[in-house]
Amino acid sequence: MVSKAVAKYVHALHLKKYRLRHGAFLVEGGKSVRELLSSGILTERLIVTAEFAGKFAAELPPGVPVEVVTEEELTRLSTLSTNNTALAVARLPAEIPLQPAPNQLLLALDEVRDPGNVGTLIRLADWYGLAGVVCSETCADPWAPKTVAATMGSFTRVPVWQRPLPAWLAALPAGLPVYGADLHGDNVHRLRLRPHGVLVMGSESHGLTPPVEACLTQRLHIPGRGQAESLNVAVSAAILLDNFYRNE
Amino acid sequence: MVSKAVAKYVHALHLKKYRLRHGAFLVEGGKSVRELLSSGILTERLIVTAEFAGKFAAELPPGVPVEVVTEEELTRLSTLSTNNTALAVARLPAEIPLQPAPNQLLLALDEVRDPGNVGTLIRLADWYGLAGVVCSETCADPWAPKTVAATMGSFTRVPVWQRPLPAWLAALPAGLPVYGADLHGDNVHRLRLRPHGVLVMGSESHGLTPPVEACLTQRLHIPGRGQAESLNVAVSAAILLDNFYRNE
Repeated sequence: MVSKAVAKYVHALHLKKYRLRHGAFLVEGGKSVRELLSSGILTERLIVTAEFAGKFAAELPPGVPVEVVTEEELTRLSTLSTNNTALAVARLPAEIPLQPAPNQLLLALDEVRDPGNVGTLIRLADWYGLAGVVCSETCADPWAPKTVAATMGSFTRVPVWQRPLPAWLAALPAGLPVYGADLHGDNVHRLRLRPHGVLVMGSESHGLTPPVEACLTQRLHIPGRGQAESLNVAVSAAILLDNFYRNE
Repeated sequence: MVSKAVAKYVHALHLKKYRLRHGAFLVEGGKSVRELLSSGILTERLIVTAEFAGKFAAELPPGVPVEVVTEEELTRLSTLSTNNTALAVARLPAEIPLQPAPNQLLLALDEVRDPGNVGTLIRLADWYGLAGVVCSETCADPWAPKTVAATMGSFTRVPVWQRPLPAWLAALPAGLPVYGADLHGDNVHRLRLRPHGVLVMGSESHGLTPPVEACLTQRLHIPGRGQAESLNVAVSAAILLDNFYRNE
């Protein structure tokens, strides 16, 4: 059984306020924890079931406290409805400099509030090898347990920044393209896009916020043939990114 | 307040068994209910808040029983965590013949168990104007409340069938292309795909089942440049469909 202090600490990390205060976040579930252990992100503490400890003993890092608990106790500490494998407390990685480089594309998220969508978008950035993801401060927290889970391990590889988006976009070097999705934009199938600059995705229900929209240099449209009004934000981003990377 | 019999009926329709028995399904939330009312699908019964009834009085169809209830009562009848607008009981639409036609693409889903993913895929089929979606009997029920919600109204427009997938694929006319995603398949960026035949998507964790995989005529690969192992099923389908429709 973990001590009351540890249980309190883990529960506190369910919330953004305490993640920021402690500079730490939770990684839940066997697959994500194993991705964490093989990454450069620092692990503070592991809480695992006996089965997980036995199966992956060779992967447990020296010097990191490991506590073995029952499934019931692990589930009580976790935000998941059941957790029969592992939970880790990890240090929030230090931010690397956010500097758009030539021939690199950054993904920027404007008020994407659903953690599942933010996680799926980080995973997508990993698939296409983007320079990273810039989240507005109104997005779901990229270090929330649900977001981390939805990245399917990509949280260990994709640099993520949180910025007031309009100010950051306005300060970008002149001439850097800033793309955004728009129903009245240019047909992406007729463009020869190159991964350079920033692609901004907005929330599904509200689109881009006006101050962010004002920073776009090109509007992109995904031609559809049916009657759906819109696409899910991760689905739209996937299609747009594929159009950026298909000419490489 | 709705009668006990109506409450019991609505609660029964939370479950697939009773949806099939009664030939009916639930549509929850204002946006989806309004899509239902403007579609060809038959509405049996409406349960709405006073606010919804007032705002959309002109859209309520003549001859359909409408009951006005409180938000609390509506939420109790609903599968949503809160429902402050409307819920409808609708008739399951009659199946149209499932016949692959020239220059039409069908999407087939093999054991896609997450209702959110099935719904997003139906919405995507609507966006690209596909002929419809064929679900294996092991998929999430396309008429489950969560699936219907995730289609964002596309459930009213996209024909959906449930079939034992290997048998259905095996009986397709010879020469009809059957595509599937595969990490070792042909690079979609180098192909000139045309929307004709069937595109099969499998579950994210397990891929295609072997009997379905045996029916493929071409394996497709989405080239990535990063380190993510895989993509979400709806995200992969979106990218593949865009590659089919970009040459039209």
